[in-house]
Amino acid sequence: MEEKEKVEPKAIQDYYPDSFAWCYGCGRLNEKGLHFRTVWDGEGTLTRFLPRPEHIAVPGFTYGGLIASLIDCHSTGSASLALYRARGHEPGDEAPVPRFVTASLKVDFLKPTPLGVLLEVRGEMKSLGERKVVVESKLYADGILTVTGEVVAVLMPENFGSSSS
Amino acid sequence: MEEKEKVEPKAIQDYYPDSFAWCYGCGRLNEKGLHFRTVWDGEGTLTRFLPRPEHIAVPGFTYGGLIASLIDCHSTGSASLALYRARGHEPGDEAPVPRFVTASLKVDFLKPTPLGVLLEVRGEMKSLGERKVVVESKLYADGILTVTGEVVAVLMPENFGSSSS
Repeated sequence: MEEKEKVEPKAIQDYYPDSFAWCYGCGRLNEKGLHFRTVWDGEGTLTRFLPRPEHIAVPGFTYGGLIASLIDCHSTGSASLALYRARGHEPGDEAPVPRFVTASLKVDFLKPTPLGVLLEVRGEMKSLGERKVVVESKLYADGILTVTGEVVAVLMPENFGSSSS
Repeated sequence: MEEKEKVEPKAIQDYYPDSFAWCYGCGRLNEKGLHFRTVWDGEGTLTRFLPRPEHIAVPGFTYGGLIASLIDCHSTGSASLALYRARGHEPGDEAPVPRFVTASLKVDFLKPTPLGVLLEVRGEMKSLGERKVVVESKLYADGILTVTGEVVAVLMPENFGSSSS
């Protein structure tokens, strides 16, 4: 009996333009980065990540800054997925993928997040516009909700980084 | 002529108990960590950090998750400094240093933060209680305000990490 090959959903970060694929959190070209990858899971978005042993807060628990990073990139990735789908596209299509940046990040730490287990962040779009997406996220560790996040993501301006941006 | 030695202010993280000094952001014992260090600067608090080249968002700019991490540890460190001073102590005193954890973290990215320059985060206590401190922070790159943060820091519970916390 042949083992049925599981088709992994495609992550939006795999399709960011090369020039925008260096992010420490989610850039596929950043060799020292964390390589967060965000996919569709039904109508919601999903980013899974296993923190490294050094991503410690106090012994046994995950560092909040790492969690904030995870929610940050998960949210901009979710915004990209959502706007791309709204335009009729899925990751792997030829149309260029929109790239979002974070305008604001809010993280509520409900309880300590254990270290050493796979973390799952699930996102929903609270609002979806052509230039601004609000993403609400929930982080689960071993199925237990430990952190919530809300990110306002804005479409990366053409002049990102110039003095007027 | 002898060069006058500059006395560096003492960072609160240098005095956290060993068991709470493993944080990826600010733990002095975490060999792979970032080693954020927070000091008094007059009536405010200050954390300086030079991001590593890999802490990139898009070329030329600093990763938002790194900035969130910096604001996170700066704020819990500021809360420790502030409560310790309120109790009549300064870093280096023998009295045990209070250790805070983050209940919520809010970061507003006003404009892109350049990569390759020393970042300065300056904190003020919006409120200061025995169990909860609210810290407002401003991040400057080359003297330009690029990010603001607000953190609710709570005194680490005795039972941190137990099922009831």
